[in-house]
Parts: sequence; C-alpha cells; structure tokens
Amino acid sequence: MRLKATISYDGTHFSGYQIQPNGRTVQGKIEKVLTKMHKGKAVRVIASGRTDQGVHAVGQVIHFDTDLEIPLSNWKKALNTMLPDDIEVVDIQMATEDFHARFDVIEKEYRYFVLNSDKRDIFKRNFYYFVKEKLDLSAIQLASNHFLGTHDFTSFCGTNTNVKGDKTRTITDISVEQRGDTMIFRVRGTGFLYNMVRIIVGTLLEVGLNKKKPDDIPQIICQKDRSQAGNTAPAQGLYLWEVSYQEKS
Amino acid sequence: MRLKATISYDGTHFSGYQIQPNGRTVQGKIEKVLTKMHKGKAVRVIASGRTDQGVHAVGQVIHFDTDLEIPLSNWKKALNTMLPDDIEVVDIQMATEDFHARFDVIEKEYRYFVLNSDKRDIFKRNFYYFVKEKLDLSAIQLASNHFLGTHDFTSFCGTNTNVKGDKTRTITDISVEQRGDTMIFRVRGTGFLYNMVRIIVGTLLEVGLNKKKPDDIPQIICQKDRSQAGNTAPAQGLYLWEVSYQEKS
Repeated sequence: MRLKATISYDGTHFSGYQIQPNGRTVQGKIEKVLTKMHKGKAVRVIASGRTDQGVHAVGQVIHFDTDLEIPLSNWKKALNTMLPDDIEVVDIQMATEDFHARFDVIEKEYRYFVLNSDKRDIFKRNFYYFVKEKLDLSAIQLASNHFLGTHDFTSFCGTNTNVKGDKTRTITDISVEQRGDTMIFRVRGTGFLYNMVRIIVGTLLEVGLNKKKPDDIPQIICQKDRSQAGNTAPAQGLYLWEVSYQEKS
Repeated sequence: MRLKATISYDGTHFSGYQIQPNGRTVQGKIEKVLTKMHKGKAVRVIASGRTDQGVHAVGQVIHFDTDLEIPLSNWKKALNTMLPDDIEVVDIQMATEDFHARFDVIEKEYRYFVLNSDKRDIFKRNFYYFVKEKLDLSAIQLASNHFLGTHDFTSFCGTNTNVKGDKTRTITDISVEQRGDTMIFRVRGTGFLYNMVRIIVGTLLEVGLNKKKPDDIPQIICQKDRSQAGNTAPAQGLYLWEVSYQEKS
C-alpha cells in the first residue's frame, strides 16, 4: 500500500531535508520512525524534492510503501507521536500504487518572508529574513512581473547545482505583498533550479533597495550569468508552501 | 560606572535566566561576554528577577558595573556582536551608581500567548501554548477581573517556591484579548510569586474551557490552597514583557 503524506517542518535544526551520513535530516528522522514501526525493515521515503539547511516546509509531500495493517485514520497520530517536535504530519492519504511524490509534481509554491522593520525581532530570527532599510514595494512588484512565464533561469541558478542540462523553467504565478512590517513573496512554478527562489528574492530585494531597477530584470535573465543577479537570500525566510499533483488523493 | 540594559531573549534553548554550574543560561552567557570584554575580570550581572527554563523576555532589565572606557553608543553593538543570537541587547543606558535592577522595580508586565486554533502550528510551538478546544473569551475576561488588586496569592504560588513569608501581592492591571486565533493575556503587578502568572493563566484557561466558572476565582483566592487553582500553564507561552522603574534612566 502506498501512502502520501503532507508534512510540515521547522528547518532550523536540520541539515536539510535529504538524508546524509552525519547530520540531522528530515528524511533521516522520518525513515527512522517508519523503520521502527516496521520492526526494523528499512522504509524508503520519497519527497517532492529536497530543501536546504534552514529552509522550512508547510506543505512538503512524501510517499512511502507499507504493509502494516494500521487504519488510515491512525497513521497521522502514530507518526506524530514518534516524530521529533519540529516535524509534523499534517495529512496522510492512501495513494495509487503508481503515485510518485517527485515525478508527479505539477506545480510547487514557495513563500519567502522578510521582516522589513527598523527593529530586529529575536523571535523571528529563524523564520524571517530581517531587512532594516525600507524596501520599495512598488518597485519590487514591478520587477517581479518580469519573472512570469517560461525563461532560461541560468542567472538564477546556484552555482553548485547538479543540473547539467537545460535551465528553462516556468513560473506560473508570482506576487509580493506587505502586511504590516512583513513582506511576503509567493512564487509558483512547474519546476525550480537550485536556489532559484532565494536568488529571485535576493534580486528583488536589491530592486527594493534601489540597487537595481525593475527593468533590469529582463536583461539579467537574458545574460544567463549568475553573477548578474542579486545575492542568494538566506535560508531561514524560505518555506516550501505547497506541492500540487494532478490526482486528487 | 553603572549601566542599565534592556535585553530580549528566546528562552527555548536556555535552562532559565539564572546562572548554574551546568546548563546554558542567559546570565551565564552575558557574564561570559562581559568578563571577556574586561580581560578576564569577573563581571556580575543583576537582573530584575529570574525567568524559568523556556520562558522568554522582551524587556528584561539588568545592571552591571564597568570601568571600561567605551562610549555608551558603542556598548549595544559590542555586546550584540559577542552574544549568541538568542539574546539581544535592545537598549543600554547609563544608570546612577545606586540603581538596582531588582530592588528598584516598581512594576512588571508579563504577557502570555495562547494559540487557540483547531490546527497546531509547528513554527509557534516554542512561542505559544496551543489549545485546541475553543476558549470562551468573555468568561475568561470576567474571571480575570477578580485578580485585580491586592490579594494573598498562596493559591497561585508554585509549591517549590522559596518565599517563606507573606504571599500578598498586588496586580495593577490584567487584560485578555483575542487577535485572530491568538489569545493574549497581559498581567501587570508590583511583585509576583513563583509561577504566579502561569498558574493564573492556567486557571483562566480552565474557565475558558468551562471547567471552572468566572465566579469561582474569589473562592480559590480565599482558600489559599495551590490545589484549588488550575494547572501551571507551560513555559513557552510566557514573556517577561516590561519592567518599570521610577527613575527615568
């Protein structure tokens, strides 16, 4: 039986999603719990994709196979009881045998939270990127529109990527709004390169600080040169918000 | 020269404010930094009072003496550069030689944050107390009024207190408000017993869950018996919010 779970995690104390020999990882913790539940039989978990160290998830999606005869309604509680308190199973559903959490992704949404205030907030340090200088929201919004659609995003791809081939990706929706002293960036797309959202946000922040102009964006995209874009915004403001699949499981 | 500093800290990863031989403490971290700045000469820090493990502070106040010739304007940055990222010096001022962060306190304000929602929020787990059952705000507000004024708060004093004498304290202001799914308790008073705010909040939450009635409060106060009050609300929702002094330093 294949199960599809939506999970949320606070990335602060993880060395990222993906399992690694040394380091506390989300995948490592989930597989450890599942293996325990399966009396030592190793259970492999497949996610929609990785997230980096310090990056959070509100709606990461995973799948795994099980032969345990636990009623579906008990799975969520069983997992949440055994998982550490910085990982939470939000929802768990039966999936078809051919459902694949990575290959079947249609769209992903990331959100990025900036605290734009003259005062630091110690309680937000792991969850927001703090920018002291006043950001120009209208300039950022103008600039953000240039990312919409299908482009070669080479300029917005982290240099230690392992994507060798084509860097064309499609952004289906992008918006930036301000709520009090919080600026929220939303980016939806059919696929993302390594650090792509963080580099887009980093570049938009330079626009917001008047270091770049909104109309510089098309040129930066055309140049296909990472050094033309802005800095990679730090991990702690980024959330994998939602993963969409065609099937309605 | 005596300095008075207002500090904020995220209590999550501290074994409380007060220094102890083993365990990471706020006082320990600050004294370590100050001692380093004073080339190894031990510097003692006095706070307005302790906070327990997991309790936060937005406006804790401390004082210490120094003979360093650092301009006042550089102190804040110097300390914040050396302190860990879960402690922040918010403000630092020159104080009179007889200013005392503990003895000169006139009033303290604590706030307590409850997430009253049908859904847990993993990003708030260290900063709010999560209550799933719908709370009755009006009942809580009615009940809270009974705490105002001067009472013997024996029923609201943690049993491992080291206060031997009189347990009469004065609450000068108390209010409870709801903002979205957040319920915020504010308590101001001239002095507090061990765990007093957490027991008051725990008792008010029982009123909010209809396990106690608003008019039970005067009776609970009169009984001077800890077992009559509600549970001690957990540490992570509590913030030492503000400490007031007469002098205007």
